[in-house]
Amino acid sequence: MIAIVIVTPKPVVNDPQGVTVKQGLASLGFSEVSDVRIGKYIELKLEESSEHAARERVEAMCRQLLANHVIEDFRFDIVRDGRR
Amino acid sequence: MIAIVIVTPKPVVNDPQGVTVKQGLASLGFSEVSDVRIGKYIELKLEESSEHAARERVEAMCRQLLANHVIEDFRFDIVRDGRR
Repeated sequence: MIAIVIVTPKPVVNDPQGVTVKQGLASLGFSEVSDVRIGKYIELKLEESSEHAARERVEAMCRQLLANHVIEDFRFDIVRDGRR
Repeated sequence: MIAIVIVTPKPVVNDPQGVTVKQGLASLGFSEVSDVRIGKYIELKLEESSEHAARERVEAMCRQLLANHVIEDFRFDIVRDGRR
């Protein structure tokens, strides 16, 4: 089973990486980009048979390690096969 | 218009960040995780009226700046509203 986790900075938190990428895009002529936010994409391969159990485990992983809940939000999807 | 870009290391490329996260998860008791791959999640806000034009521009951004095509793959979706 594969879990796709997306961790993003909370909307109120500064995202200097996003600002830098926005400036880089503007200097390449992509001035139509008005905002950039950058987060993490995490793909986990799990040995877990039930989707319900996988969901609980991945939620615990996010809370304990993958996301910093003070400054980041997370969301995830469980998929049965890879889609890389 | 919002573009969601996912940049991932190519399957043949080492992902030391993923290995470290896998070890961290194992040491927290999440031993069911057999593989972790980490990529970037990029959300772009675009002043572009047509989805077709947006798609071409975002593809160009990925090729020129957002992804390193030697070691990374990218894919993206265009969505009309935010879904952060």
